[in-house]
Amino acid sequence: MNVVVGQSGGPTVAINASLAGVFEEAVRLGAEKVYGMQNGIAGFLQEKLVELNDLLDDSEKIELLKRTPACFLGSCRHKLKGAEQNEEEYKKIFSVLEKYDIGYFFYIGGNDSMDTVAKLSAYANKIGSKVRFVGVPKTIDNDLTETDHTPGYGSAAKFVATTMKELVRDTSIYDLYSVTIVEVMGRNAGWLTAASALAKGEDCCGVDMIFLPETPFTMDGFFQKLSAKLKEKKSLVIAVSEGIKLPDGRYVCELASSAQGEDVFGHKQLTGTALFLAGECANRLKIKARAIELSTLQRCASHIASLTDIEEAYRVGAGAVQAAAEGKSGVASVFIRTANEPYSCAVEVREIDKIANQEKTVPLEWIDTEKDDLTEEYLAYARPLIQGELTPVFENGLPKHLCMK
Amino acid sequence: MNVVVGQSGGPTVAINASLAGVFEEAVRLGAEKVYGMQNGIAGFLQEKLVELNDLLDDSEKIELLKRTPACFLGSCRHKLKGAEQNEEEYKKIFSVLEKYDIGYFFYIGGNDSMDTVAKLSAYANKIGSKVRFVGVPKTIDNDLTETDHTPGYGSAAKFVATTMKELVRDTSIYDLYSVTIVEVMGRNAGWLTAASALAKGEDCCGVDMIFLPETPFTMDGFFQKLSAKLKEKKSLVIAVSEGIKLPDGRYVCELASSAQGEDVFGHKQLTGTALFLAGECANRLKIKARAIELSTLQRCASHIASLTDIEEAYRVGAGAVQAAAEGKSGVASVFIRTANEPYSCAVEVREIDKIANQEKTVPLEWIDTEKDDLTEEYLAYARPLIQGELTPVFENGLPKHLCMK
Repeated sequence: MNVVVGQSGGPTVAINASLAGVFEEAVRLGAEKVYGMQNGIAGFLQEKLVELNDLLDDSEKIELLKRTPACFLGSCRHKLKGAEQNEEEYKKIFSVLEKYDIGYFFYIGGNDSMDTVAKLSAYANKIGSKVRFVGVPKTIDNDLTETDHTPGYGSAAKFVATTMKELVRDTSIYDLYSVTIVEVMGRNAGWLTAASALAKGEDCCGVDMIFLPETPFTMDGFFQKLSAKLKEKKSLVIAVSEGIKLPDGRYVCELASSAQGEDVFGHKQLTGTALFLAGECANRLKIKARAIELSTLQRCASHIASLTDIEEAYRVGAGAVQAAAEGKSGVASVFIRTANEPYSCAVEVREIDKIANQEKTVPLEWIDTEKDDLTEEYLAYARPLIQGELTPVFENGLPKHLCMK
Repeated sequence: MNVVVGQSGGPTVAINASLAGVFEEAVRLGAEKVYGMQNGIAGFLQEKLVELNDLLDDSEKIELLKRTPACFLGSCRHKLKGAEQNEEEYKKIFSVLEKYDIGYFFYIGGNDSMDTVAKLSAYANKIGSKVRFVGVPKTIDNDLTETDHTPGYGSAAKFVATTMKELVRDTSIYDLYSVTIVEVMGRNAGWLTAASALAKGEDCCGVDMIFLPETPFTMDGFFQKLSAKLKEKKSLVIAVSEGIKLPDGRYVCELASSAQGEDVFGHKQLTGTALFLAGECANRLKIKARAIELSTLQRCASHIASLTDIEEAYRVGAGAVQAAAEGKSGVASVFIRTANEPYSCAVEVREIDKIANQEKTVPLEWIDTEKDDLTEEYLAYARPLIQGELTPVFENGLPKHLCMK
């Protein structure tokens, strides 16, 4: 019996460690062939399969795979429609499964990808197929339900907190007033922006304000706080989620679009939240203001990966295979935290229907009463996830990756 | 006899290693007190001095200092006017030197800071002062003359090349057309953008085009090349210096300003080069286009510092002290490369007048005939500078720094 595994959605630093976990556990449990689907379910529909037993045939490759950002197998954004709307696609998928004698289907991804697993396992039930479908969660956004946290979050959080510490140093050197606005990914959930709070410590005063999409943002409130902070301290670093919203529900960055409209060629502006806010700071306060977007660096900086995250990503992949081997289908492997200190997390499985298409935001009680910082409860939750380092394999001075071609 | 050392100009990852080198060598050669000036010459004028013998009183602190980005002592952008224009400032400086019994003055900085050293040593000659003034170069821009390269460049180059490798992975996962434009610092000299070329290797196809300020950039030429590349490859990563220029000498980003003008509130737009080019790609080619500015991260990412760079920064600081002890003044310590393979570099001193206010750009013969890549000569020059890692001291999962307060 053979196995297939795919990766889907946005990349993280840990998604290849989950692939390593699925592959090695499947081999250990006796799978004949472990196929990888290229570019997720979209590639599977075109029979774009590779043989991982060939591609990952020694332990050095596995170690490099764990240290390689993004998706070794490629990814896709293909969302399966319901079987009633597009049964042809389902028939195609199950014919490919049969053709390659595949009994186990593993899909590593976020909530959209979990929806794919949910739909395929439901369809398997309907047609009496014995193929088992198990989801492996991943996302830097940490917004999946039913799991304590998601693989990929810890490494992205470690990059964000490390970078914030470095930026606090960088911005503090001049005896001048300045505001630096750092934009972190997260449209609806502020988990990754919240990681900025980890920068504070004995050797760092931390960032000065943190704004998440979970609480409404007002320009007046922002400038009131900013002016008050500037009376105490000359150089401020402020972390904002890309998705911070006004009380009326519009994104703050929409203010930029409406302020700027289109350029003289009729092109839409691309201004983001930080760029808009920094521009407002410069204009209103007449001080030096800089916008920094961490952009995709925050999801691919494998050179500063969290060892805890990478090890857990591997375990959650292996756990999915164990669950399937035990006969489970239509589930996803998840983390159940048993203690903060010493930190301990078990891998279990939960019904995939409870995860697919759901979104978990930062609990409001973890945001402080001023709505510009995180509480100690958040810090106790997040700190264990960034512990330890997976030192890159350096070659010619640069981290070495494993690539298909 | 006492010593004073200051830091000036923009921060780098290596400037504190030079401070450590100055401090330890001064102590070794018998200096009674080593003062640090806070916020460079501007702070010195206000007698803002700290005693480094107290602040750096154990080897653990020195090790942390070497791993701390930006300027431990703070920085300034104060440019000394000529003595004929503002002799009061000179008199004040020499009175502070006398008051604190300072015989040696070390200033770590870029070409503006070297100008300060040049002016002060000339003034000392004029008034018959015995105080010796020696410059210690630093800048991520690598644009100082008389030295093979500058401390700070190697670490910034390592960050840029590492990040480009990670971005190449990140952008390649979807089976879709996309262009990612990455903006690297450098207004007139493209050295740091050139480091993108280091990403290419057995495990990475590298970035697809590199544009430096040294050669003129045309929008038509850019889009012709882009269209040709997109026929061979779906996801492109392009590195551009912030300072790339049109044939008429205007910065490319000025096209953005003229296209966008001011917003409806009369605010000036902040759009950078990458943002402008990505917008043009999206609009002209109707494909996914993303702009990434490495921003100040490229000058403060000490967590991925080059060991070669940090060790050399230390040596160039120590070398400045040795030169002063030998009676030299009005000089700067520099690197003289003796071999590429195995790499070897000596620390010597050169007349500061030849360095101050000069700018060294990338030799045109190191830019390939297509004007969008670097030659093997550049790679052979740059590769030794990014070798080795200075592993951070991690505490609570994050790199630990040394801070004055």
